[in-house]
Amino acid sequence: MIVVMQAGASDKAVDEVVERIVQLGLNTNIIRGTERTIIGVIGTSFKAELAEMLASAAEVDSIIPVSKKYKLASREFNPVATVVELNGGLTIGGSEVVVIVGPGAVESEEQLVAVARAAKEAGGHILKGDVFKPRASPYAFRGLGLEGLKMLAKVREELAMPILTEVHSTEEIELATTYADIILIGPHNMQNFNLLEEVGRTMRPVMIQRGNSATIEEWLLAAEYALNTGNKAVILCEGGIRSFDPSTRAVLDLAVIPLVKKLSHLPIVVNPSQATGKGFLVPPMGLAAIAAGADGLIIEVHPHPDQALAEGPESLTIAEFEQMITQVKNITRARKQAL
Amino acid sequence: MIVVMQAGASDKAVDEVVERIVQLGLNTNIIRGTERTIIGVIGTSFKAELAEMLASAAEVDSIIPVSKKYKLASREFNPVATVVELNGGLTIGGSEVVVIVGPGAVESEEQLVAVARAAKEAGGHILKGDVFKPRASPYAFRGLGLEGLKMLAKVREELAMPILTEVHSTEEIELATTYADIILIGPHNMQNFNLLEEVGRTMRPVMIQRGNSATIEEWLLAAEYALNTGNKAVILCEGGIRSFDPSTRAVLDLAVIPLVKKLSHLPIVVNPSQATGKGFLVPPMGLAAIAAGADGLIIEVHPHPDQALAEGPESLTIAEFEQMITQVKNITRARKQAL
Amino acid sequence: MIVVMQAGASDKAVDEVVERIVQLGLNTNIIRGTERTIIGVIGTSFKAELAEMLASAAEVDSIIPVSKKYKLASREFNPVATVVELNGGLTIGGSEVVVIVGPGAVESEEQLVAVARAAKEAGGHILKGDVFKPRASPYAFRGLGLEGLKMLAKVREELAMPILTEVHSTEEIELATTYADIILIGPHNMQNFNLLEEVGRTMRPVMIQRGNSATIEEWLLAAEYALNTGNKAVILCEGGIRSFDPSTRAVLDLAVIPLVKKLSHLPIVVNPSQATGKGFLVPPMGLAAIAAGADGLIIEVHPHPDQALAEGPESLTIAEFEQMITQVKNITRARKQAL
Amino acid sequence: MIVVMQAGASDKAVDEVVERIVQLGLNTNIIRGTERTIIGVIGTSFKAELAEMLASAAEVDSIIPVSKKYKLASREFNPVATVVELNGGLTIGGSEVVVIVGPGAVESEEQLVAVARAAKEAGGHILKGDVFKPRASPYAFRGLGLEGLKMLAKVREELAMPILTEVHSTEEIELATTYADIILIGPHNMQNFNLLEEVGRTMRPVMIQRGNSATIEEWLLAAEYALNTGNKAVILCEGGIRSFDPSTRAVLDLAVIPLVKKLSHLPIVVNPSQATGKGFLVPPMGLAAIAAGADGLIIEVHPHPDQALAEGPESLTIAEFEQMITQVKNITRARKQAL
Repeated sequence: MIVVMQAGASDKAVDEVVERIVQLGLNTNIIRGTERTIIGVIGTSFKAELAEMLASAAEVDSIIPVSKKYKLASREFNPVATVVELNGGLTIGGSEVVVIVGPGAVESEEQLVAVARAAKEAGGHILKGDVFKPRASPYAFRGLGLEGLKMLAKVREELAMPILTEVHSTEEIELATTYADIILIGPHNMQNFNLLEEVGRTMRPVMIQRGNSATIEEWLLAAEYALNTGNKAVILCEGGIRSFDPSTRAVLDLAVIPLVKKLSHLPIVVNPSQATGKGFLVPPMGLAAIAAGADGLIIEVHPHPDQALAEGPESLTIAEFEQMITQVKNITRARKQAL
Repeated sequence: MIVVMQAGASDKAVDEVVERIVQLGLNTNIIRGTERTIIGVIGTSFKAELAEMLASAAEVDSIIPVSKKYKLASREFNPVATVVELNGGLTIGGSEVVVIVGPGAVESEEQLVAVARAAKEAGGHILKGDVFKPRASPYAFRGLGLEGLKMLAKVREELAMPILTEVHSTEEIELATTYADIILIGPHNMQNFNLLEEVGRTMRPVMIQRGNSATIEEWLLAAEYALNTGNKAVILCEGGIRSFDPSTRAVLDLAVIPLVKKLSHLPIVVNPSQATGKGFLVPPMGLAAIAAGADGLIIEVHPHPDQALAEGPESLTIAEFEQMITQVKNITRARKQAL
Repeated sequence: MIVVMQAGASDKAVDEVVERIVQLGLNTNIIRGTERTIIGVIGTSFKAELAEMLASAAEVDSIIPVSKKYKLASREFNPVATVVELNGGLTIGGSEVVVIVGPGAVESEEQLVAVARAAKEAGGHILKGDVFKPRASPYAFRGLGLEGLKMLAKVREELAMPILTEVHSTEEIELATTYADIILIGPHNMQNFNLLEEVGRTMRPVMIQRGNSATIEEWLLAAEYALNTGNKAVILCEGGIRSFDPSTRAVLDLAVIPLVKKLSHLPIVVNPSQATGKGFLVPPMGLAAIAAGADGLIIEVHPHPDQALAEGPESLTIAEFEQMITQVKNITRARKQAL
Repeated sequence: MIVVMQAGASDKAVDEVVERIVQLGLNTNIIRGTERTIIGVIGTSFKAELAEMLASAAEVDSIIPVSKKYKLASREFNPVATVVELNGGLTIGGSEVVVIVGPGAVESEEQLVAVARAAKEAGGHILKGDVFKPRASPYAFRGLGLEGLKMLAKVREELAMPILTEVHSTEEIELATTYADIILIGPHNMQNFNLLEEVGRTMRPVMIQRGNSATIEEWLLAAEYALNTGNKAVILCEGGIRSFDPSTRAVLDLAVIPLVKKLSHLPIVVNPSQATGKGFLVPPMGLAAIAAGADGLIIEVHPHPDQALAEGPESLTIAEFEQMITQVKNITRARKQAL
């Protein structure tokens, strides 16, 4: 941590800052520049509050953190890429691209089975079904709950596909962990810290989707909350950030894939359906994500998008999905050659 | 709702859209323009899913909602401005500007009493104390919990000041309602719909702070969740939105004050401390909020900002706060003359 | 265009709006819904001011445009994809991916020749050299001007590579067209409408880079300015948009590739160097752009990035560039299989 | 400037960075922390390119600037607030709030005279008239040019009001300076560096409106370009930044008023008409700007907003303007008491 004093700061102000740092058992190194004095703080055991305290001290211009705020999530802490292994042996973060398929909201057993069978046959690996549906409006369809989870469990048994489902509050965790293999924490809840910790403690693999205006640092700090419970099976998911352009629902920020892989050891998947909100954009953006190095994709598929109770416009038909999977395989192969 | 067909859409596609609308018991009115055909949907009882369904139909370009998605929160539904009355008779949304003062996190009884007494004496109305402290990093100070609530209750009794405290999960609600007069739902939780409903059901006044990338429509839909429980004592709080400029923590979007007052009947307060993150910006932005018509302010005050465990840089000293209150009174008086 | 009246608007207000529309020689179609009345405006020859005028009329809630504001740039106007052909026969927008290589600023003949030869050998097609360098700070290196253009011309002759250079004001156009094959209008100037028209009138191919906070509609309207001069050789370039996350210089918005291809017939290239500002992100984002369907890439290459007078951190070394070109070819091949 | 090395950087890499700095005649001071080594660069005469060069060196994590990039615009360089004096003695940046009134585009002498007389009578100080109208669409009304300037000059003579007009290219400067007292550089051109310099060289007062996605640093660097020509009469104008919320045209970022006054000595005015795009938001946001310390306001006024060729929806009628001026005076008086 570096303390930058104001231009022309007095010796007294510099001494006061140094004294406070030393009182906390840390060392300092002072650089007196031609315009400003800066104070380096040396030591590892900073209280997180130190930066805020010093920022309020007299004649201090700003505080510059040098070390990262997250530790367990960092590549420096764990140089080897994390590979999350699910029951049944499927892995996320290894050499294969994982395809997660979902109908958006679970509406009926019939709909779910149609999607799941087609997905499995085309080469999909994991079934995503949302049974607790948070909606921006209280008047929209809000999910089937327990009934839906049972349908998911039935499909899992029949097709041997692992299940991914989203939870929105701690009350839903117990039910979800009974039936699901991966628990998703959605973008609205990325900074719901109680939920991150409670889901982490289940030791079930947890996927954390980036909040729609979260920085990468905030996202990795959210992962840190889950990792801090001892759970090592944390997966990141990019599903778009909010911008000024109404053309798409969100902007899919694909540069986070190589960036996260440099900063962190955690696997990362991408959800082009949710980000774009438009079916015709899903295949090109899914392929782009693979080319950029994503470990997997989440694709919304619906037997009849125009009758879906949610996520219709962004869903692919089963035929479109099958075609996309072929393309994904081509790009995956090219990427392997490429690297 | 209006369905805009693609340029050159076929009669068959238009007929299919019309048929689907009619099946739902709604009427249509077709406008055949020189370039495009548009279909007006007439009726009040739309299912929220209808827009998504139609957006996926063949040869449809886009769906344009005409009615607002929220109802209970709208000025059209309730033309008279809501005035929230607290125990003891204080009101929010009436002719007086309400000043809410807080030390950020409750750290000790000594600190709390010092702030509360000074605030009360200077003309502050409500004490804000956070005892459950959500932090972006798991390694930061996370609040005193029950012990802190008891300190707040003690101060309330001594000084007859209503208490505002934030909850972050449904588990915290029972404790908070035992001790607090207003429950705050913070920006991270603005779309935590379970929490909005659970807090709403307590029938205690609830303040909903805008998420840092929430549109006004999403914010009013969050209020709709709370209002939909039958609770009428809902207060909005603007505390800044995220932008591209790192100069301040967030951008205080003051135009929402007159805009919300046009769209909705709910009172609105502003938190310049949290938005700006810098003490010297708090007085001018607080005065600006009053000039723009805000019903109240939340101001962070700390006896020793440079020793605060949180929110130090944005806190005013007690002397700065006293000076600001004088300014607030001047501007409030000028605003009344002005209107 | 649709005029949405306020809920409960009077017949008088509706009549006044209709009358004004009819005076302009247009027709109307009125839909009286259960909550609101909306008025469809029928006709093609709208003055662009009509929307603004009606928005100010009494009891009008909002104006919704139905037709697009741009015409010449739209896919509806010209359903066949535009292929821009350069002197020498190279095409942009055809079946091949075009690779544009540049050292950022032209610094010396030695530097330029080193990059150009290596680029050519590795499979690069066009040389980009900036000789008029707009810098956010007046104290930074600002380009070699005419001297630099002559170096570019010399390289063009020696290596038969077309030249791309950026202009920032109308004074620079004459010089630039003497030496360059494609004129770039950079993001700062995307809404410099005089410049768009003046460059358009040269009938030289013009590349328009999206402003860093421009919507797709504003970008296509900028293209409309150039097209409106009769110039048909307009190429779009995505180089990143501004976001709240300081991790990268800008967010590369790759979804615009398929989106622009749906809305417009113009070719589109991507500049991952400028968007990311970090060399290690350039190859994955370049490959992602190709997978998403881009017609070309602009890649900054420098013989010694750590000695560059500008764009050092985002430049690839020649060896890194050669490796990237191999990857680009693999992904291009896979994309062709894929489609 | 501080160079932060990667965690575990080698001594060799540190030495190379130090050597390069020393070669440039600068001194260094090395801090070896427990996790990282950082290198302070000491000296005043940095080339602007140094940061970019070092950022590309081996094992360097990041470069942190300590000094500001602008100098002439900084409060540190010039601690006394700049007061711009116009012909006739009117000042901007002094103790009085300046009111600039305009009809948006100049449409006719009749319209201009009506607005100017009413504005003058109500207490307006400066007349703003745009005669070169940049429009996002090439099909919109684009201004009266020379004819419009002559109308402005006539009004100036009759009413003794200084004139403000916008230029968009260097070709327009000569004409504009013949007739206008202040030259406005609009948000599209804030980083049109040639234009900034050419307008600066006229030594006429120049107003620079913040680009709609410009940081405060970029804005002050734009001012630096104008100041660097020797022109000291530079005025800043905040007219809104782009956000994700479509409710208003832009977000008026009022915190820049106290922030700019801390960082810089330049006066700052606010344009609530352009930022909000809605007439009913103009008075509250104008008053808020005054309360926050703005030196002036730009208010669009039109005798008949619903017939305006541009800016109709955001314009006040003459009666609304007169009422607003009374409010502005009340708040100005309260602000003076307050300070």
